[in-house]
Amino acid sequence: MVQSIDIQLTTKKKEKPPAKNLQFGVHFTDHMFMLDYHVDKGWHTPRIMPYQPITLDPAAKVFHYGQTIFEGLKAYKTEDGRVLLFRPDKNIERLNRSNERLSIPHLDGELVLAALQQLVAVDQDWIPSEPGTSLYIRPYVIATQPCLGVAPSTEYKFMIIMSPVGAYYAEGVKPVKIFVESEYVRAVRGGVGEAKTAGNYAAGLKAQEEAKEQGYSQVLWLDGVHLKYIEEVGSMNVFFKINGTVVTPALNGSILDGITRNSVLHLLRAWNIPVEERTISIDEIVEAAKNGQLEEAFGTGTAAVISPIGELNYHGEKLIIHEGQTGELSTKLYDTVTGIQNGVLADPFGWMVDTTAASTASK
Amino acid sequence: MVQSIDIQLTTKKKEKPPAKNLQFGVHFTDHMFMLDYHVDKGWHTPRIMPYQPITLDPAAKVFHYGQTIFEGLKAYKTEDGRVLLFRPDKNIERLNRSNERLSIPHLDGELVLAALQQLVAVDQDWIPSEPGTSLYIRPYVIATQPCLGVAPSTEYKFMIIMSPVGAYYAEGVKPVKIFVESEYVRAVRGGVGEAKTAGNYAAGLKAQEEAKEQGYSQVLWLDGVHLKYIEEVGSMNVFFKINGTVVTPALNGSILDGITRNSVLHLLRAWNIPVEERTISIDEIVEAAKNGQLEEAFGTGTAAVISPIGELNYHGEKLIIHEGQTGELSTKLYDTVTGIQNGVLADPFGWMVDTTAASTASK
Ligand SMILES: Cc1ncc(COP(=O)(O)O)c(C=O)c1O
Ligand SMILES: Cc1ncc(COP(=O)(O)O)c(C=O)c1O
Repeated sequence: MVQSIDIQLTTKKKEKPPAKNLQFGVHFTDHMFMLDYHVDKGWHTPRIMPYQPITLDPAAKVFHYGQTIFEGLKAYKTEDGRVLLFRPDKNIERLNRSNERLSIPHLDGELVLAALQQLVAVDQDWIPSEPGTSLYIRPYVIATQPCLGVAPSTEYKFMIIMSPVGAYYAEGVKPVKIFVESEYVRAVRGGVGEAKTAGNYAAGLKAQEEAKEQGYSQVLWLDGVHLKYIEEVGSMNVFFKINGTVVTPALNGSILDGITRNSVLHLLRAWNIPVEERTISIDEIVEAAKNGQLEEAFGTGTAAVISPIGELNYHGEKLIIHEGQTGELSTKLYDTVTGIQNGVLADPFGWMVDTTAASTASK
Repeated sequence: MVQSIDIQLTTKKKEKPPAKNLQFGVHFTDHMFMLDYHVDKGWHTPRIMPYQPITLDPAAKVFHYGQTIFEGLKAYKTEDGRVLLFRPDKNIERLNRSNERLSIPHLDGELVLAALQQLVAVDQDWIPSEPGTSLYIRPYVIATQPCLGVAPSTEYKFMIIMSPVGAYYAEGVKPVKIFVESEYVRAVRGGVGEAKTAGNYAAGLKAQEEAKEQGYSQVLWLDGVHLKYIEEVGSMNVFFKINGTVVTPALNGSILDGITRNSVLHLLRAWNIPVEERTISIDEIVEAAKNGQLEEAFGTGTAAVISPIGELNYHGEKLIIHEGQTGELSTKLYDTVTGIQNGVLADPFGWMVDTTAASTASK
């Protein structure tokens, strides 16, 4: 049986931000979830409480040795008032894979799912319902033991916070310009690239800043060994349509096993579009672009869902893709995935978890 | 002129732990230093205050994206009551190099030095004086902006905490057993290996745990590209004495520029011992060990100073070094460095910064 979650409701509800032009991850809902771990007690005391600052010893290991992992998923409100989560089981599996890699104790998946559902229920008024909007959910674990020895912590906190987010593209899906990074490296096989852990993002900040200065919104990472094979984009996996076939880097241990990536692969296969998960060199992409065979390119991730790529810059050479416009496949994928997520389209794969019951119960 | 530091003393001094068998980084002194950054104000409000928990928004970037760096250095109390810091200028330079890599704003070196000196002065009673003991000092920066966007933070805290630490070797210098890691990777060129940032340590936890299970105290990392060239040990640089020449990996961008390493190089050169900073393959070490030419091996770092290596395990093969005993050079280096640090030996390089004046002023 799942541990029961104690709920302490806020007495002072915050004002909700206007649903228009919501910035990503800036506003937070009225409540949060917390669960503590101590090596002698295991994970204990699950509770929903008012969103509030947390107090930690300045020696807490998360500040010094980065022992922390996180997840990101979304809840949607349908036109007929249902509350849906997109594939939370996948996030929970990945959460525990990240935990394993970072030597953080395993979390009970059922408890995490119950926590997600009950927290979303408590703060369901925060789920925006304008087209393209959703409630972004951030589960994460931090190491809290106050000790400077480099070793796994004996104490942790698992928390969930939530933020209403706007349509990623205020004026409809618009292609982005991506800088192919050939100096900085994000991850290498044998490292932590496959885990959703803080250090991977810290490692990418500088490259991202330098790309921004040149007018590119994100970097495309190449592999750490050869600086030659395509890995992924900032916080998205990447796909290319070459001569009718869709290719994406195989899960090689140094890229994230994206849930949007996985969902896109399901759709492409269901649509009988040829698809390959394999090693892809940047040279192959450059050549395909020059031959006119690179028909589309797009990123996939929870935040943007599908993000068409209109330009790649590699070593100063600019490859314009699909004349800088959104391609047909990108559009179809975007419409299909968001349609399923918003409950407008049928859900043939059983991806959506209806939490309306939990929500009604907590009214 | 350096900003002046506000000092608020504690009204409730803690009991000091017994100087015997002090564990590393478990007890903290009565005070800490804090300095805030906001993008509109720069670094502001330097202050010494009672050691206390810190309160952060659960969305603070350090928890999610690991934008954080740290340093580690020591203060010593001499027999005649002087208070000495070991090469703090080097730590301050490295702190700012780490800041630069992690897109954290530059810190004023003079202010950091003043903060170190005044904080040590305020808590000078915490510096243990038994042989081999010292006060470990941990300066660090954390990103505090409450926002889930992956981009450099607009707010930071720079803090300094301090912990009295025992002799690393309770019963004299003793060789350690090291596992040569050929699966997991800590860092790769183009990454953040050269910076003292949390994610590098998180990335090493699992390898370290697996090595511990097999009876090894640390891992020796190989380079991320070829898994062939020697990098460094957990939190130490590494040296080998082969056939009369001392070799250590060159600073290649993926290892830390250790201050103990730098000091050892100075001493070796002053002693006219042949020394080379260069690429070293693990095969070269294995061969030297088999030929009987591997005379000594040792790690260097602030915590252990000099840590002789008595055994290396590479692919299951055990290389015993100097019959598992501490070598003459390791002993001489340990005695010399600690002698200079404790003020027992002359300081020919001008490494020690006497902070007794600051300490007396604050009485
Ligand atoms: C590094 C990285 N790659 C890929 C993704 C896409 O994964 P998902 O589709 O599960 O959001 C993300 C974002 O979550 C990410 O952070
Ligand atoms: C990864 C790493 N390498 C080497 C060292 C040794 O550096 P230092 O001699 O400055 O302590 C440390 C510890 O500080 C470290 O963390």
